[in-house]
Amino acid sequence: MCRWLAYSGPPLRLKSLLFEPKNSLIRQSLAASRSAVPTNGDGFGLGWYGTEDHPGVFRDTLPAWNDANLWSLSEQIRARLFFAHVRASTGTATSRDNCHPFRHGGLLFMHNGMIGGFPVIRREVEQLIPADIYRDRSGTTDSEAFFLLACGNGLADDVAGALKRTIGQILELMSAAGIDQPFRMTAAIADGAQMHGLRYSSDRRSPTLYYATGGAIEVRERRVEFTPGDDAALVLSEPLDEKQDDWIEIPEDHLLHAVGGRAEVRPFEPD
Amino acid sequence: MCRWLAYSGPPLRLKSLLFEPKNSLIRQSLAASRSAVPTNGDGFGLGWYGTEDHPGVFRDTLPAWNDANLWSLSEQIRARLFFAHVRASTGTATSRDNCHPFRHGGLLFMHNGMIGGFPVIRREVEQLIPADIYRDRSGTTDSEAFFLLACGNGLADDVAGALKRTIGQILELMSAAGIDQPFRMTAAIADGAQMHGLRYSSDRRSPTLYYATGGAIEVRERRVEFTPGDDAALVLSEPLDEKQDDWIEIPEDHLLHAVGGRAEVRPFEPD
Amino acid sequence: MCRWLAYSGPPLRLKSLLFEPKNSLIRQSLAASRSAVPTNGDGFGLGWYGTEDHPGVFRDTLPAWNDANLWSLSEQIRARLFFAHVRASTGTATSRDNCHPFRHGGLLFMHNGMIGGFPVIRREVEQLIPADIYRDRSGTTDSEAFFLLACGNGLADDVAGALKRTIGQILELMSAAGIDQPFRMTAAIADGAQMHGLRYSSDRRSPTLYYATGGAIEVRERRVEFTPGDDAALVLSEPLDEKQDDWIEIPEDHLLHAVGGRAEVRPFEPD
Amino acid sequence: MCRWLAYSGPPLRLKSLLFEPKNSLIRQSLAASRSAVPTNGDGFGLGWYGTEDHPGVFRDTLPAWNDANLWSLSEQIRARLFFAHVRASTGTATSRDNCHPFRHGGLLFMHNGMIGGFPVIRREVEQLIPADIYRDRSGTTDSEAFFLLACGNGLADDVAGALKRTIGQILELMSAAGIDQPFRMTAAIADGAQMHGLRYSSDRRSPTLYYATGGAIEVRERRVEFTPGDDAALVLSEPLDEKQDDWIEIPEDHLLHAVGGRAEVRPFEPD
Repeated sequence: MCRWLAYSGPPLRLKSLLFEPKNSLIRQSLAASRSAVPTNGDGFGLGWYGTEDHPGVFRDTLPAWNDANLWSLSEQIRARLFFAHVRASTGTATSRDNCHPFRHGGLLFMHNGMIGGFPVIRREVEQLIPADIYRDRSGTTDSEAFFLLACGNGLADDVAGALKRTIGQILELMSAAGIDQPFRMTAAIADGAQMHGLRYSSDRRSPTLYYATGGAIEVRERRVEFTPGDDAALVLSEPLDEKQDDWIEIPEDHLLHAVGGRAEVRPFEPD
Repeated sequence: MCRWLAYSGPPLRLKSLLFEPKNSLIRQSLAASRSAVPTNGDGFGLGWYGTEDHPGVFRDTLPAWNDANLWSLSEQIRARLFFAHVRASTGTATSRDNCHPFRHGGLLFMHNGMIGGFPVIRREVEQLIPADIYRDRSGTTDSEAFFLLACGNGLADDVAGALKRTIGQILELMSAAGIDQPFRMTAAIADGAQMHGLRYSSDRRSPTLYYATGGAIEVRERRVEFTPGDDAALVLSEPLDEKQDDWIEIPEDHLLHAVGGRAEVRPFEPD
Repeated sequence: MCRWLAYSGPPLRLKSLLFEPKNSLIRQSLAASRSAVPTNGDGFGLGWYGTEDHPGVFRDTLPAWNDANLWSLSEQIRARLFFAHVRASTGTATSRDNCHPFRHGGLLFMHNGMIGGFPVIRREVEQLIPADIYRDRSGTTDSEAFFLLACGNGLADDVAGALKRTIGQILELMSAAGIDQPFRMTAAIADGAQMHGLRYSSDRRSPTLYYATGGAIEVRERRVEFTPGDDAALVLSEPLDEKQDDWIEIPEDHLLHAVGGRAEVRPFEPD
Repeated sequence: MCRWLAYSGPPLRLKSLLFEPKNSLIRQSLAASRSAVPTNGDGFGLGWYGTEDHPGVFRDTLPAWNDANLWSLSEQIRARLFFAHVRASTGTATSRDNCHPFRHGGLLFMHNGMIGGFPVIRREVEQLIPADIYRDRSGTTDSEAFFLLACGNGLADDVAGALKRTIGQILELMSAAGIDQPFRMTAAIADGAQMHGLRYSSDRRSPTLYYATGGAIEVRERRVEFTPGDDAALVLSEPLDEKQDDWIEIPEDHLLHAVGGRAEVRPFEPD
């Protein structure tokens, strides 16, 4: 059910984290370690902040493990904040518009999890999205719908507040529709200056989520090494190597906020 | 703005009409003769009825003019009723789910034209689609929305009635939203036993639409030849060759109904 | 390293074997049971004989497990002889021309295995292919090169002889180049009237290969059932269900020849 | 038959030249002005030099005129030297490996034209490519074969010399095979520090080729404007706007060499 990673800090070549570590994201696309679904071959995507006022996005439906474009872009692009995602579909079709990350204005969003029974409440969720934002809906995933609804709830100004409100609304719709299946989510949100990582599920069985901070990041002999400092942060579905010290698990029902490498993790509860 | 053709009659190899005539549909994808937009390279699709109770559909985002899969399938598949479409996008993204033909149950639908100002009324149109049918919405085109709404309006039982009702609803939404742009449509609908071809626009400037009937169809020296009889019918955006005799223009505001090669063309007016 | 199946017998809907059994080929694309590489998501392909004098081929680079076109074609196409293949790349790029099955004239070919050190001897292998046949080389795989060379060695007239000669030539090139890696192969060849299945490796460590015969094939409750008789044969990388009785392993260094359901398995030794 | 542009000079956003001018490269993909084939929808590609020791490459088989990835990358990537190409196939299949530009080591190459009768001499051309370079052949185009052969002839050290030798070898093979069709070429070569643009045909009927130089480039109101100076150069298939002053036609049988904006155009004659 998807794997992702988000980085902020000194400009870093995407390849460092996507390809070089022992359990790199690309390795996870073929065989993830800590996921119910080991294979995440239903597409991939990159989002990154450069010199423009909104991020770039590159998405494709092919598996990430053998894509020459992804390799070349990862080699060439350095960014101070970037997202990368490999997808395992939970039902919706494979199309580029259904791949993560999603962008709206200057925001990036990616997701691992599912809105239980989404086909039943899809339209009700979509109806809560403000009209001007709804025009940007170009796919059919629960992830994109969640994101656009959160944008309508002020995600650009107050991430925690918008997420609480959005999840609250969705839980209410699920309850009203008599849906038994859970709501499960790890998600990342960024605006170019900061990033957030959320881990929340209605049944406390979220996908895995970790983070790490340091001064800068280097990859040596397939291990990720952090220099001392607080300029760089990584939020990610699973550790990129086997060293246990660096990777801190984000507990259930918690929201991480990182500016550069200064990260805070706080309890999270939906409205 | 798209080109298409629909055939019903004795089983015919798709290649006969897609590739062999002088102005074949594949030729039209590269350079259509009677279209505002000569290039129709934003994807293509086939729909055909065989031995199953619902039709097969094959769609891709690549141009039709150089696709080995399309060639091979067209050579191998013979069908008594089939649709073929080459797309020129009017704005929505290129994805397989945005290519025609669309299928719902045993129905096939394809379209050339546009719902003016659709982004403004998109959600209102979607809201008119019954919930169980809305779950099948997998793209973002005005074409698919129109089709699913028409299905909700009884397209499987009364094609003319459902089309009148659907267009009436959409014209009303357009008017209420103050949209100046027109509603323009040529469209084909089939259910395996019969097919319909509609030509209607709010400003009487529809894309072109023609039909032809006969006993059977053969293609010789790149010309389409009809034997005498009434078993086979073709409905199509533009003639497949230069012979003027065979191709009958469907007038503005008319709906064709063909069972085998017995075709009737009647005036059409939306509700 | 790829999984495949080949069927000949009474016309059968492809879906029966591709999707319905417990360990269907599509299931194997996501998680094969008896393969060194469980994921076979680097493309897929179908080849089938219908009414034309040469087979149809449909290939794509997307994983087989979530492709709407593959599903629809498998539902609609019935064939008396067909091939299906899901690919795990051994290095060469993912493109449609590098997916199996390959076709030349009326022949189909698919492969699981590898020519050790192929990049070193690639050109030498290609140089052995007759000029007129070499013009059909449209990819870069060792599989396609092997096939075209075998065609040059008379594969259309004497499958066993052509395979022996071709493997002999390749083993010689490998030896001359000082290549340590092995030559490993399971492969299927068909011409519309009969099919062959080969299992041969230079180090007797071939990928798995099985076969089964019967009167006709049905799939009930995800199990493949064979009626008594000798009209239908299946040759395949791994069993489609857990019943042990039906599936007969083809030993190392053996070549199966099936006409309808009459199958012979004979020792095989390259020249 | 393809359109392309090459830029060197102060870092420039690719979008400036790919999308903004009146006759931008993307516009040319849909409707080129000075090309025998107006539609160039058989794929596209970018190559650009950044901070790495070899260039990045991004290629896809979709038409360039409606690709979200191309748009986003063009917005985000600034480069001091870049290539962009939109393809109209001359016969070979559409695959990413058959799209331009091609890369070898630190070199980029793109091409518009054809080697007449290439299928007849394909193998002979390939045989002239040194073994280690031949291993990089991943497609089937005459363009890629030409490029790799030129690399083998010292393209990295002496562009003019390598091109003369390569064309000479090919003309010889064509003559020996009795091929009537011409050899026609416009091509660009870069190594990160300089670029070359060639216009040569055996029958003096080359595709069009132009260049322009200046201090820096800006696009205002869809027109390309050059400030005074000699830091920036553009080599391209056809002008990006209607101003005649800036665009200088490169004559038949001439080779342009540009370092920054200092361009020399010299007669060219193959060996």
